[in-house]
Amino acid sequence: MSAVGGEPRNVRVELGARSYDILIGGGLVARAGGEIAARLPGVRAAIVTDRNVGGHHAGALAQSLEAAGIASTTIVVEPGERSKGFATLQEVVDGVLAARLERGDVVVALGGGVVGDLAGFVAGIVRRGMRFVQIPTSLLAQVDSSVGGKTGINTAHGKNLVGVFQQPALVLADTGVLDTLPEREFRAGYAEVAKYGLIDRPDFFAWLEENWRDVFAGGAARTHAIAESCRAKAEMVARDEFETGDRALLNLGHTFGHALEAATSYDSARLVHGEGVSIGMALAHRFSARLNLASPDDAVRVERHLRAVGLPVSVDEIPGELPGAERMLDYIAQDKKVSRGALTFILTRGIGQSFVARNVPASEVLSFLKEVLAS
Amino acid sequence: MSAVGGEPRNVRVELGARSYDILIGGGLVARAGGEIAARLPGVRAAIVTDRNVGGHHAGALAQSLEAAGIASTTIVVEPGERSKGFATLQEVVDGVLAARLERGDVVVALGGGVVGDLAGFVAGIVRRGMRFVQIPTSLLAQVDSSVGGKTGINTAHGKNLVGVFQQPALVLADTGVLDTLPEREFRAGYAEVAKYGLIDRPDFFAWLEENWRDVFAGGAARTHAIAESCRAKAEMVARDEFETGDRALLNLGHTFGHALEAATSYDSARLVHGEGVSIGMALAHRFSARLNLASPDDAVRVERHLRAVGLPVSVDEIPGELPGAERMLDYIAQDKKVSRGALTFILTRGIGQSFVARNVPASEVLSFLKEVLAS
Ligand SMILES: NC(=O)c1ccc[n+]([C@@H]2O[C@H](COP(=O)([O-])OP(=O)(O)OC[C@H]3O[C@@H](n4cnc5c(N)ncnc54)[C@H](O)[C@@H]3O)[C@@H](O)[C@H]2O)c1
Ligand SMILES: NC(=O)c1ccc[n+]([C@@H]2O[C@H](COP(=O)([O-])OP(=O)(O)OC[C@H]3O[C@@H](n4cnc5c(N)ncnc54)[C@H](O)[C@@H]3O)[C@@H](O)[C@H]2O)c1
Ligand SMILES: [Zn+2]
Ligand SMILES: [Zn+2]
Repeated sequence: MSAVGGEPRNVRVELGARSYDILIGGGLVARAGGEIAARLPGVRAAIVTDRNVGGHHAGALAQSLEAAGIASTTIVVEPGERSKGFATLQEVVDGVLAARLERGDVVVALGGGVVGDLAGFVAGIVRRGMRFVQIPTSLLAQVDSSVGGKTGINTAHGKNLVGVFQQPALVLADTGVLDTLPEREFRAGYAEVAKYGLIDRPDFFAWLEENWRDVFAGGAARTHAIAESCRAKAEMVARDEFETGDRALLNLGHTFGHALEAATSYDSARLVHGEGVSIGMALAHRFSARLNLASPDDAVRVERHLRAVGLPVSVDEIPGELPGAERMLDYIAQDKKVSRGALTFILTRGIGQSFVARNVPASEVLSFLKEVLAS
Repeated sequence: MSAVGGEPRNVRVELGARSYDILIGGGLVARAGGEIAARLPGVRAAIVTDRNVGGHHAGALAQSLEAAGIASTTIVVEPGERSKGFATLQEVVDGVLAARLERGDVVVALGGGVVGDLAGFVAGIVRRGMRFVQIPTSLLAQVDSSVGGKTGINTAHGKNLVGVFQQPALVLADTGVLDTLPEREFRAGYAEVAKYGLIDRPDFFAWLEENWRDVFAGGAARTHAIAESCRAKAEMVARDEFETGDRALLNLGHTFGHALEAATSYDSARLVHGEGVSIGMALAHRFSARLNLASPDDAVRVERHLRAVGLPVSVDEIPGELPGAERMLDYIAQDKKVSRGALTFILTRGIGQSFVARNVPASEVLSFLKEVLAS
């Protein structure tokens, strides 16, 4: 259990007129009303949450808002990726309009990445843009999806293909709410924490190797890991708000990971996103070693750490059948990170030395996949 | 019939990095490929159109694109306001994704305001923002909806409540395509042309009083009226891209107009938007005179001109029953231009001297409506 008192850590996302604070610490749901009222005086709110998270935390949030003079309506969606679709989008839009909220009012996302992406998109399009606050409740949402302004839904053609950039006015990462998060979800989110170390923060990765048990336990180490992750993402977002270049590094592990998610039909019983990313990061390091870009020792070190925390690092750990290498390559080529037909990967020269590799030959990827899937 | 040759007029919309040209003249559909390829080299395109417009002009457009090396898919929606809804939005999004267009590719709107608002919204959300070109084919779309970047759809809660600001990369207003536009639609669009004169261009209004027959006939006067209207709108948009202040003047005639559209259930057999605006402008001038803000002579002059071109200026001209004054006030209060409960109107001190009036007392509006509806 994280401490409820004490000042939260503050990570600022620098985006000119769209800059905002990420507050990280215990007890922030209970303080949300005050923090929001101080920044957005006079607003009314729609809280968007899912049934799981809402049951635990929506009452406390609504109370905190009310105590700060913010009237709110709560809109509850079903938990799970399915809610990131046109049907639920329309329902939430209708809920916000039915509450007669205006352009200056605020949509508050209380939940994991699903709720954040959905509610952020709603905030971006109702009355051509309302205000938006993120209260991420999964580790993944706290260190990744709530920061950076990417919002959206899935379609039959693929994940996250429809949405807008909608920066929040404030992010409140309450480290205490993670105590109700299922452990598998916490672990999956941890893959994204490790990712920041692997992208360009070798010291942070080394710190995680030493301190991951404390991060899982909660307290100061957890807060530090979340703050460091938010800082890493915030810097990348500030350099490239609309994802035209550098920000692609955040996809380390994701090209393989997304292909595995697609290959398992996004069936969370088999694989959740962070697990796919964990395997994907391990593969990205092995693939980089195979291309003589990095030492195989680094790949071993990455796998050792991910395994230690209980994350999968090999496709064999996914229950059930996987398609063959050719089909996996199709999934990779369909991934939206593929620009104009060329295969783009995030590869690495070692721990904390990743880079965007464009024009990776499909033949190299294919023979690597054959090896990986045969083993 | 407008001349097909000759250089088009160019009105520049100054929005910093989002600046763009509006080209106005004959034969622009046939020249679209070259104009787009010059500005957006290497793109592929999705043409969005409706059945009416598509039948006349989509073939010529696709041909022009092809000749310039731009591969295109055409997505056809049903004509009419109904297409501005979630169902059609999803269909068009799916069509663009099925064509495997990427973020750098372009959505081209070929149609009236319905197609422009819908296709612009699609361009704004597919892959979190594609490029967008407007080829407006109704007079209303050429002088109003295609300029300024407001896009969106309707919901059960009201019109245009969901959307984004998505500036086009280029607007091509082909004055020739207006020859296939039904005359009633042309006349309705003319109400918006007259509006620019009434807002802040008294000389333009006087010019229209003299030359409106030539505008209806086509040729140079039509091109001039469209260019002048685009310039007026572009200036207002440049001052206030996200509609937080000045841009509200563009709603002259629209508060009453929207209420009348709602009161007639958006039944275009009874009233189309421009007709509502025409009556709304006449009422805004009469209301201003009643409040001793403007001379009654100006209201008479406005009504005389609108009547001359064949536009309605009084609620009596709307076929069928209208609700009473109280109900009309409800429609006005529901209109999205109402900010935080205060009644906001665009009123005037005379021809070309309109202004934003906040906190107009509801009691004054009500007694004016009673008078208007009783007559
Ligand atoms: N926008 C971005 O930049 C970005 C980045 C990464 C991922 N994402 C998106 O994020 C989504 C995944 O996010 P996620 O992993 O948080 O999934 P999620 O929102 O589905 O949450 C995972 C599960 O945990 C539950 N949960 C969340 N917080 C809880 C809490 N405190 N207590 C109890 N239960 C809780 C949820 O109800 C859900 O069942 C994906 O849709 C992905 O596309 C977006
Ligand atoms: N985005 C904005 O800033 C803005 C501003 C004003 C109005 N609007 C929107 O614009 C819409 C109204 O636009 P509209 O009046 O153009 O309506 P519309 O698009 O429905 O067009 C009117 C009719 O004319 C037909 N048509 C259009 N061009 C034609 C042509 N060249 N030949 C033959 N038929 C043609 C259409 O098929 C339709 O039946 C409304 O939805 C309104 O909300 C938007
Ligand atoms: Zn991820
Ligand atoms: Zn209008």
